[in-house]
Amino acid sequence: MNEIAPFPEVQHQRAVLPEGLTLDCGAVIRPLAVAYRTYGRLNPARSNAILVCHALTGDQYVAERQPVTGKDGWWDAIIGPGKPVDTDRFFVICANVLGGCMGSTGPREEMTDENGVPQGRPWGTDFPTVTIRDMVRAQKKLIEHLGIARLLAVIGGSMGGMQVLEWAATYPESVFAAAPIACATHHSAQNIAFHEVGRAAIHSDPDWKGGRYWEDGRIPAQGLSVARMVAHITYLSEAALTRKFGRRLQGASALTFLEDVFQVESYLRHQGSTFVRRFDANSYLTITRAMDYFDLANEHGTVANAFRGTPTRFFVASFSSDWLFPTSESRALVRALNAAAARVSFVEITTDKGHDAFLLDEPEFHRALGGFLAGAAAALGV
Amino acid sequence: MNEIAPFPEVQHQRAVLPEGLTLDCGAVIRPLAVAYRTYGRLNPARSNAILVCHALTGDQYVAERQPVTGKDGWWDAIIGPGKPVDTDRFFVICANVLGGCMGSTGPREEMTDENGVPQGRPWGTDFPTVTIRDMVRAQKKLIEHLGIARLLAVIGGSMGGMQVLEWAATYPESVFAAAPIACATHHSAQNIAFHEVGRAAIHSDPDWKGGRYWEDGRIPAQGLSVARMVAHITYLSEAALTRKFGRRLQGASALTFLEDVFQVESYLRHQGSTFVRRFDANSYLTITRAMDYFDLANEHGTVANAFRGTPTRFFVASFSSDWLFPTSESRALVRALNAAAARVSFVEITTDKGHDAFLLDEPEFHRALGGFLAGAAAALGV
Repeated sequence: MNEIAPFPEVQHQRAVLPEGLTLDCGAVIRPLAVAYRTYGRLNPARSNAILVCHALTGDQYVAERQPVTGKDGWWDAIIGPGKPVDTDRFFVICANVLGGCMGSTGPREEMTDENGVPQGRPWGTDFPTVTIRDMVRAQKKLIEHLGIARLLAVIGGSMGGMQVLEWAATYPESVFAAAPIACATHHSAQNIAFHEVGRAAIHSDPDWKGGRYWEDGRIPAQGLSVARMVAHITYLSEAALTRKFGRRLQGASALTFLEDVFQVESYLRHQGSTFVRRFDANSYLTITRAMDYFDLANEHGTVANAFRGTPTRFFVASFSSDWLFPTSESRALVRALNAAAARVSFVEITTDKGHDAFLLDEPEFHRALGGFLAGAAAALGV
Repeated sequence: MNEIAPFPEVQHQRAVLPEGLTLDCGAVIRPLAVAYRTYGRLNPARSNAILVCHALTGDQYVAERQPVTGKDGWWDAIIGPGKPVDTDRFFVICANVLGGCMGSTGPREEMTDENGVPQGRPWGTDFPTVTIRDMVRAQKKLIEHLGIARLLAVIGGSMGGMQVLEWAATYPESVFAAAPIACATHHSAQNIAFHEVGRAAIHSDPDWKGGRYWEDGRIPAQGLSVARMVAHITYLSEAALTRKFGRRLQGASALTFLEDVFQVESYLRHQGSTFVRRFDANSYLTITRAMDYFDLANEHGTVANAFRGTPTRFFVASFSSDWLFPTSESRALVRALNAAAARVSFVEITTDKGHDAFLLDEPEFHRALGGFLAGAAAALGV
């Protein structure tokens, strides 16, 4: 697996913003590049824009073929003409996060100094620490660049939901409606621990070379693959794994020392080995760290403080078998929103698909989200 | 970490049985070495022996200082004079499992051929695949070697509980009482998946060298450490991690790219790095595979069939926050024992300590286990 070359260069549509961005850590990114995709048309009143925020390993290709993998967009099920997020009606924007690896400024893009002068090599681990709020600030600059003052809605699941919350907390006047899905107001100790296992796996791969793997065109494929494997387990429920694989054997022979004796092992290894073809290890380190740092209560004293007097209406959704971001954490968010006198609706979807359910065919969830967006559009006269 | 030498050689007390053992996979181990420790005294009727079965990374030093780590025995809390497993009254035996690395025949011991002729090198990955039943067969030979026909009780948690079940299913006449604790009748898809991540981490360490790391005196410390880290998360509950560490930062500075920003990360890395000083990577591969293969229903058609007409009395215990072997799996075991008309009592201990609770200070559990053993002793007139 070490022989895999870095994934192919793709020309991504992007806005390059010369003014740059000052990060929470104090570093300056200049210029700031934000790669993005749009679907549907912005109406003359510029009031029908919905920003979609992607998860840890997602990207801006939310409702179309992903150019590296050739697979369908990760939220094709809900975004498109006539779908819950109806692109006949709404103007949908999705941007690659700051620190990502699909065209936005991040570890695999060319490093610049504070004056924007290119340094002739990738950022690598010299890329500064970013926060979820930094990601949101970068998106805000993109939205302004597109001439949009207020978003009809900001929606997203998992780390995307963290960005939704940060949007509503930081730019309340710019977010008419917010849908944080399958997320929480902070990353838990257990979630940090799982991320740390992934990072330890990457760090221990000799091909990582202290983050300078780009120097000889290699990638820390083994370490990144192990990181993906452990993360992938957390995206599924025990029930989903059992339903999909149970204890079925992969080959005919039991009682061997071979790898991949059980189907679940073969599946996990496949998940790991395909992931390394599309994702950058230093981006993975950067983004997992941003998630770990996320803690709204720490930023604002309490979660309720983050939303006190907010004009934004909220739709919170969780999934019953999600143990990465369990329903209890969504309920705590709803209680904080109630305490802040925010307008909020909440639904827990009963499913055995685990955290990944937010990406999958969950008709009740799709109907609820579609209804929320339709209501917001009606309230805004869109 | 790669510079760590293999852990020190210790002379373990052991029985070397020249007749050897034929394994489920068909291979023959000859001679069979079983390292063990005993506590208390066997009574003249040879009726007061309790066999303790250890978990994945446990060993025979159950109630005394472990010679490699210098730490207390892993079940010191419950085994000793006047303790729930009272060594003033009972003769306690604990053996290192077949495939282990504390003196019993396993990957780091010298390889022998079918005739018992030493091959001048460790078994390494040439050590055959073993099952939980093979481990139990090896223990049975030790018990016979010690002149004991019937055990008053066999007790153990986690993989130790799997051995208890296999003892009762395979040698019902030799087990008067059985206490399978914090375990299940099979290893779940999720548990197999977590094991596979650990194995992938070991396999991807260049110092593993296809299992022949002993050739140059190195060990796959990084891979084994990552394996331990991910396993350790599964031993704790989310609540226990939060209580112990929450989101507390390790150092003064936040927003850095350093490792170990959060205390939970430092703790996990410590768990990983200390583990590699006491455990053999090939043993880890061997034993995790044995756990994955464990499936009583597959061996016997149904779990109830495994125990139909059993003379053994059972005590099943689970812990409410154990998500590795959740209470639901213990309840399924109890239902199967009921269906087999076995005598069984069951207790779920309410605790937030997760799977590790079976090793920790849980007075209710200790009282219940002690009461069960006292009852069995009384019934047998010990």
